[in-house]
Amino acid sequence: MSTPNYTNFKTIIVSLDEAVLVVLMNRSKQRNSWSHDVPRELQKVFDLADRDDRVRVVIVTAEHTAPAFCAGAELAGGWDLLWTPEEEKEGPHAHRDQGGQTSLAIYRCRKITIAAVNGHAAGVGMTAMQLPFDFRFVWAGAKLAFPFVRRGIVPEATSSYLLPRLVGHSRANSLLLTGATFTPESPLIQGLYHQILPTREEVFPTALAFAKELAATTSQVSVAVAKGLIQNPGNSVEENHLLDSRGMRELAKTDGAEGIHSFMEKREPKFTGTLSKDLGSWFPWWQQINTKHRNGKL
Amino acid sequence: MSTPNYTNFKTIIVSLDEAVLVVLMNRSKQRNSWSHDVPRELQKVFDLADRDDRVRVVIVTAEHTAPAFCAGAELAGGWDLLWTPEEEKEGPHAHRDQGGQTSLAIYRCRKITIAAVNGHAAGVGMTAMQLPFDFRFVWAGAKLAFPFVRRGIVPEATSSYLLPRLVGHSRANSLLLTGATFTPESPLIQGLYHQILPTREEVFPTALAFAKELAATTSQVSVAVAKGLIQNPGNSVEENHLLDSRGMRELAKTDGAEGIHSFMEKREPKFTGTLSKDLGSWFPWWQQINTKHRNGKL
Amino acid sequence: MSTPNYTNFKTIIVSLDEAVLVVLMNRSKQRNSWSHDVPRELQKVFDLADRDDRVRVVIVTAEHTAPAFCAGAELAGGWDLLWTPEEEKEGPHAHRDQGGQTSLAIYRCRKITIAAVNGHAAGVGMTAMQLPFDFRFVWAGAKLAFPFVRRGIVPEATSSYLLPRLVGHSRANSLLLTGATFTPESPLIQGLYHQILPTREEVFPTALAFAKELAATTSQVSVAVAKGLIQNPGNSVEENHLLDSRGMRELAKTDGAEGIHSFMEKREPKFTGTLSKDLGSWFPWWQQINTKHRNGKL
Repeated sequence: MSTPNYTNFKTIIVSLDEAVLVVLMNRSKQRNSWSHDVPRELQKVFDLADRDDRVRVVIVTAEHTAPAFCAGAELAGGWDLLWTPEEEKEGPHAHRDQGGQTSLAIYRCRKITIAAVNGHAAGVGMTAMQLPFDFRFVWAGAKLAFPFVRRGIVPEATSSYLLPRLVGHSRANSLLLTGATFTPESPLIQGLYHQILPTREEVFPTALAFAKELAATTSQVSVAVAKGLIQNPGNSVEENHLLDSRGMRELAKTDGAEGIHSFMEKREPKFTGTLSKDLGSWFPWWQQINTKHRNGKL
Repeated sequence: MSTPNYTNFKTIIVSLDEAVLVVLMNRSKQRNSWSHDVPRELQKVFDLADRDDRVRVVIVTAEHTAPAFCAGAELAGGWDLLWTPEEEKEGPHAHRDQGGQTSLAIYRCRKITIAAVNGHAAGVGMTAMQLPFDFRFVWAGAKLAFPFVRRGIVPEATSSYLLPRLVGHSRANSLLLTGATFTPESPLIQGLYHQILPTREEVFPTALAFAKELAATTSQVSVAVAKGLIQNPGNSVEENHLLDSRGMRELAKTDGAEGIHSFMEKREPKFTGTLSKDLGSWFPWWQQINTKHRNGKL
Repeated sequence: MSTPNYTNFKTIIVSLDEAVLVVLMNRSKQRNSWSHDVPRELQKVFDLADRDDRVRVVIVTAEHTAPAFCAGAELAGGWDLLWTPEEEKEGPHAHRDQGGQTSLAIYRCRKITIAAVNGHAAGVGMTAMQLPFDFRFVWAGAKLAFPFVRRGIVPEATSSYLLPRLVGHSRANSLLLTGATFTPESPLIQGLYHQILPTREEVFPTALAFAKELAATTSQVSVAVAKGLIQNPGNSVEENHLLDSRGMRELAKTDGAEGIHSFMEKREPKFTGTLSKDLGSWFPWWQQINTKHRNGKL
């Protein structure tokens, strides 16, 4: 792949800070709500980041002075925004929720992903903009809501799959079936956030420092395989044992060797493995289901 | 379906308060233990509530002056109460635990379900009477126990499936494998309860106010599909994406349209969708396994 | 099976204290790191304990004066320790991680298992030495780390399967994808431990007293079936209902009868059921996958 550049976006501003790709929402005045282009640009940037060996971590954040981190979908155009004329013709099975498409792009990204939630969040601002990420940092004062049952719709963007796994079914029920507004320190949302910060200003710098530390100390192939194992652990403890054994053996050919040598020599490791050259044909070991339409159009 | 009435019960007292069906345990003197009829009447009331469009929420509670919310199974008759002569003849595979049958009726009910636990609870009082519900409210002083391993029996009523999903396997082990007694504020039971109230008197009114608020602000079809998605999310994130996309499209035909119009018009929505007319043939999308005996008798 | 003795070990010291088998790590000077023999001896002791009816609980612990509970794998010999020449010849699929083999032996043990973590723990000291156990007791000052992504390797010993189930995916990400060091009271590791003790000295005696209480009050067949149900609950709530119904019926033939009679007679139960004579051919109801090599050598 030729080295991508990240300049060709409108609804987001993307910049590479060392190994950290920073994705800044660029619709502050519209409360960073999702217009037609937002999910499509997010999908594109995560697809690029996934394949760009220079990128170790992707952070999505907003201006801390914006009225919201993300206020949900822009509904000014009504439902027309939500599905295409083609889908409309094909029938109810043809719709592909753009929130879900974005969640998949983020969830499948083999790099470390961080949501730096420095403002209020609702709807897709809670789902696709947070749940598929590896880590969530949040401002303690953020108002957080999954309002779907109060809007006559359903929990979208794969939130009914991701949220119960992240925090258990009891808390997921409390969040998804009430549609109520929570703050990060509520016991009902406990465990969702890696770190809660007292001010909006601190959220992004804290996430960025965390990202740079991970980029400096971890192996990119280890992270990719670890994410794969956590997301696709196999159907039993035995299957998982076969998978992590294989992973261990595969990584011994690359960053694992440096890991052990540096440990024996009591020095910091210098990992040189990259996803493009060192991941091997064994990865992914699971079936990635194609969610495209049968006619090839999405 | 003709409008059901809820008067024909002995072990429970059932009343419809606006859209909230209140099920009051009617065996206070027996510590609300389960006689032969209790599970059968609970199954019946949840089956009726599931199909009665007037009912938005079902609350199960007890008199707050009763010695217990539910002290478990009534064992005065020995094991004879627990299986029928037919089952006995057919063999050990023929038994169907009444706790489990009740859990299934509650879990499958497409309305919001709340356990208002205003007293002590043990055995089936912890399992079928709490775990299959969407929300649990509890008195802070309640003594709570899953005593199965101390009685020579097994965790019943689908508790070995439901509890680890609700609070994770670590806490589920602590609760199920010790058989010990806990109070709601123990870190080992954390996350199981939506709200913990300081007095027994407050539990039911708090749950009722919560129920009425949800009945007034949420869509019944949204709640049914949201519950379905949380319980049956599909086997992968991709399958979940296809399911919630379809759900979004289906609901757009009914309460979703009102949701978006009310949002654009900055007014409260007035949802008119009902399960009997608006859920469509797409629901349920999963296979509901028949647990009846092959000979048709249960 | 003839009564096993537990004297033939080098890297661990094993003793039977009433019904509690105490496994003491015997490599304090090497920080209880895993040499070639440690996992093999742990696998052997858990296999024996599983089949020894006298044993109700197995505790693994270390000397509280040791520099660590377990510092991970002994890497002095480099990768050579980690796979055999036979595996090397056969290819990357042939490796079987000894951490995983040990996790499987502990996870499959049908007795109550307790890790009494009275010192620091890293790597396999966090994974195989803790996650497959039913209960974990820990010293509040313990430094705990899953450093795999910082060593160029992968989360081993079935940790990517076990940890998300124990504490949810959000906390599992925080622990496994950072490789950072935590202490037991960090919110990010919350829920993993049954009890946190202020001093190293208290960890083992507290775990031992807990073990003896469980041994005295619980039924060994109930515990075995309860563990089986929690680990292998079936693929749906209905399947779980069929399984726990069957378990209830099976146990009624043995300790369940004593449980109910003692309850009706208001006395403590005296359980006499044992795994060797009372578990029946119904157990296990799930397929235990053979992880051995096809050529029969492991």
